[in-house]
Amino acid sequence: MILCDIGNTSVDLFMDGKRTKLSVADFNPVTLQDDVYYVSVNASLNERICDLMNWHDLRAFIDWDKYYSTMGIDRIMVCEAVDEGVIVDAGSAITVDLMQDGLYQGGFIALGLRAAQEAYSRLSPALNVSFNFEVDLTIMAKNTPDALTVGFLAPLIEKIERLGKPIFLTGGDAHLLSRFLPEAVVREDLIFQGMNKLIEKGVKC
Amino acid sequence: MILCDIGNTSVDLFMDGKRTKLSVADFNPVTLQDDVYYVSVNASLNERICDLMNWHDLRAFIDWDKYYSTMGIDRIMVCEAVDEGVIVDAGSAITVDLMQDGLYQGGFIALGLRAAQEAYSRLSPALNVSFNFEVDLTIMAKNTPDALTVGFLAPLIEKIERLGKPIFLTGGDAHLLSRFLPEAVVREDLIFQGMNKLIEKGVKC
Repeated sequence: MILCDIGNTSVDLFMDGKRTKLSVADFNPVTLQDDVYYVSVNASLNERICDLMNWHDLRAFIDWDKYYSTMGIDRIMVCEAVDEGVIVDAGSAITVDLMQDGLYQGGFIALGLRAAQEAYSRLSPALNVSFNFEVDLTIMAKNTPDALTVGFLAPLIEKIERLGKPIFLTGGDAHLLSRFLPEAVVREDLIFQGMNKLIEKGVKC
Repeated sequence: MILCDIGNTSVDLFMDGKRTKLSVADFNPVTLQDDVYYVSVNASLNERICDLMNWHDLRAFIDWDKYYSTMGIDRIMVCEAVDEGVIVDAGSAITVDLMQDGLYQGGFIALGLRAAQEAYSRLSPALNVSFNFEVDLTIMAKNTPDALTVGFLAPLIEKIERLGKPIFLTGGDAHLLSRFLPEAVVREDLIFQGMNKLIEKGVKC
């Protein structure tokens, strides 16, 4: 059994306990013979997949009463991995979701680190600086890189902490954010853990 | 005496207790005969002003030991207006600065509301939605507009409140933010109050 997370630019595969990442351009779904359970936000790859008998869309496994209909499928998958806690997926956006007794409590979407830095640089040449990830977020800043970093990260990190639940970090910037959330558990494969749990629950007809 | 705040696209004048806003393109500094005390971030207008005898750059009045050298001049001016409190200037960026006993304690810079919305829309077509300013920021969101609004505003608003000081709101989005900070005082002319206080203190040679 293969798990597959298809994004707009990359394809993440999980097989035999190992994770592989490919670019969408390099990926041909026909090359996989095993049963593949997948999620996908990629419309053009979806067209090539829909006729393949061994590919199973995990959307059919979701209990949609638990989530809202326009919620991103990748957010749902990471939520499925956690019964109790805050799930922070730090990717192109930073999504924060709350699970309690296996039920979805809602969440929010912040900009990802790169998107935020780019937005600052568009505001003014004076703000075209890199974030300082060594900064102390508890201290008000007295230089520009710190002011941007504190301005973007301090409110977000403190908000996540004040939700008062175990924190699970995933996504490309998980390790970076873990510097500021030392109590958090980093689970790079959280989406695949969620996909596995969902498969065990079975198809919702 | 006229006070003048020159930005990149607009010129804000304060004379006879009244505020007037002009576009930079429509503004000719030579037309003002009175003494003009100004701040400016506009390099090209600065060239036209530097030879005018009645124009006085307020940079000369600033005690730079109080602030950091790369700090925006408009931030310094609004800080000068407040001895004790948090100054939130909600413009193209949202700057947050802390004053205590008339001394600057540091601050941070968040994206402005428009810059944040544009950044979300660049991330994904699914996030190309308007913020919902009726949202309850204390509740985790279960739809996309709320998720973005809560994601951007809740951490920021809560951070500002937790600084635990009187809050002074200014800038173009001051009234909008005041919905979420009902205890804050809105002072649209805060920059001119700061400029006046600085002028009373006199030039720092």
